[in-house]
Amino acid sequence: MPALERVLITGGAGFLGGHLCDRLIADGAEVLCVDNLLTGRAGNVAHLTDHPRFRFIHGDVAEDLHLDGPLNAVLHFASPASPKDYLELPIDTLKVGAFGTHHALELAGEKDARFLLASTSEVYGDPLVNPQPETYRGNVNPISPRGVYDSAKRFAESMTMAYHRYHGLDTRIVRIFNTYGPRMRRDDGRVISNFIVQALRGEPLTVHGDGSQTRSFCYLDDMVEGLLAVLSHPSDRTREQRMDRAFLHNNTEAEDSIHHPINLGNPEERSVLEIARIVREATGSRSPLTFLPRPVDDPRVRRPDISRAGRLLGWTPRVPLEEGIRRTVAYFRDLLARG
Amino acid sequence: MPALERVLITGGAGFLGGHLCDRLIADGAEVLCVDNLLTGRAGNVAHLTDHPRFRFIHGDVAEDLHLDGPLNAVLHFASPASPKDYLELPIDTLKVGAFGTHHALELAGEKDARFLLASTSEVYGDPLVNPQPETYRGNVNPISPRGVYDSAKRFAESMTMAYHRYHGLDTRIVRIFNTYGPRMRRDDGRVISNFIVQALRGEPLTVHGDGSQTRSFCYLDDMVEGLLAVLSHPSDRTREQRMDRAFLHNNTEAEDSIHHPINLGNPEERSVLEIARIVREATGSRSPLTFLPRPVDDPRVRRPDISRAGRLLGWTPRVPLEEGIRRTVAYFRDLLARG
Repeated sequence: MPALERVLITGGAGFLGGHLCDRLIADGAEVLCVDNLLTGRAGNVAHLTDHPRFRFIHGDVAEDLHLDGPLNAVLHFASPASPKDYLELPIDTLKVGAFGTHHALELAGEKDARFLLASTSEVYGDPLVNPQPETYRGNVNPISPRGVYDSAKRFAESMTMAYHRYHGLDTRIVRIFNTYGPRMRRDDGRVISNFIVQALRGEPLTVHGDGSQTRSFCYLDDMVEGLLAVLSHPSDRTREQRMDRAFLHNNTEAEDSIHHPINLGNPEERSVLEIARIVREATGSRSPLTFLPRPVDDPRVRRPDISRAGRLLGWTPRVPLEEGIRRTVAYFRDLLARG
Repeated sequence: MPALERVLITGGAGFLGGHLCDRLIADGAEVLCVDNLLTGRAGNVAHLTDHPRFRFIHGDVAEDLHLDGPLNAVLHFASPASPKDYLELPIDTLKVGAFGTHHALELAGEKDARFLLASTSEVYGDPLVNPQPETYRGNVNPISPRGVYDSAKRFAESMTMAYHRYHGLDTRIVRIFNTYGPRMRRDDGRVISNFIVQALRGEPLTVHGDGSQTRSFCYLDDMVEGLLAVLSHPSDRTREQRMDRAFLHNNTEAEDSIHHPINLGNPEERSVLEIARIVREATGSRSPLTFLPRPVDDPRVRRPDISRAGRLLGWTPRVPLEEGIRRTVAYFRDLLARG
């Protein structure tokens, strides 16, 4: 692949999307950011608006996606991604996973651009295997209210692989585990942002279930490094080789192909109760805990097996949870002070 | 629901779709059959063309689906459904599962019509539980070549449930297990039609793998009965009750709701080798067996748990495999004689 000269990010005004815009601009790329602002926020990229290499396009990739000029890469990050959001927006979530992915793949094909799908640890559902390697097939209930996001992303993965196999696209799939850091939405219902905002306001920290369920959280900077490592890794084969049907039908794809899904996340597992303790320490808050019922199909455990990312990319997360939470607390303290 | 006065069937020129057209016409309904003839065959409904209550519409429901006049029911059967077909048509399979289902649901909503999704036992993947109840979450590899069909149908189920829950549609989902009978395509690569055609031609019967993998086959007439039973069963609730958000969020849906997926199939499990024996007897053929490699992700076992269909609908299949194969042999004997 040539250097990343001109890149499109769908969902570029989301939490991860916005940070990717920053990073790609810093790396010298021209960045086209498409977002319908359904769950993304213009504020996430407001500081880039006047940058000569940045362009914001207000549009819904589930409806269509066309663009003039060349592209080196299409990063498909558009989707409601918090349980709170996709439970409220089930049909939008399904549509962006299917129609949005289709439009983004078609555009990547037309431009001969590399394609990166932001998939999710949710494809593993409520896993019966912990940690989850990429080969784990998941425990997903397609008809539960929560299943919309899982099904949408599993569908998006299938479609991405189909374009890779049948049209020779240079595609990558990352399964992104919980990520946190500055610019998380204060109201997206995720445990770290919830706890931090509650602690800073002196409100009780709300724990769903008994708090023994574990989560593993990756700090934003580590995730962005991982995403760039996946994106810039060379393809296994040329487009002609990728389109070779014999290769497909003999199923001789390498186990460690860059084109197969790659987990990105931090395998350091903590219970929700421990996270509450760390947040209380980082904020100096004495907020008590209150316990609420656990949502339907909320996964009990979730921890990435990242050995494939390590082997293939030499990537591993570096920021400890305590440090990442301190940085995130600083962001929210500033945000809340501004009102 | 009023009687089935005017019904739309997508994929109506397919194997099951065509027989449903016959049955609904016989029951007095007006039948609109939409098919793009990608894997369906005009011949499956040719005998209905001049019927005053039948209309064939050549169209691709993945592209759009609009129709004048009222509809009581939308039966969404359009999709490549044989492994041979969806391995060759992966992107069409994904598109009809996502875009086609979306268009069909939108139409059903517009017409306030009952909606029936033809889902599949493939949502269980290569099951680790046998037989499979509807609550089994499956063992599906979303990125295998075969995964396109599984992902498309799981997505279609998620979208159907989302329209049920968020727009109050009266939807039903049937998970159809292997079905056989007259009008199967001679070239669709399924084991019964393969064996019968090979036996009638005096060619060797090709077994994939060692033939110990089991299958359970439902005779067509039984399947059509089951589909009609699901379709004509009353809804649990009125549209207003179905749209009640408290109901949704409290997740108080009845376990045995007609709106949840229902397995239809014949639980009588036979090995591929036994099926070969029955076909050789029914045809009087002395064709030998030849063994070929087993395809990637071919399920080792597949058998429906149909206790939910029995409890809810009083339905159970009645035609034994030997009898069904005799009837199917008669069809193919006639077909091949005509050249």
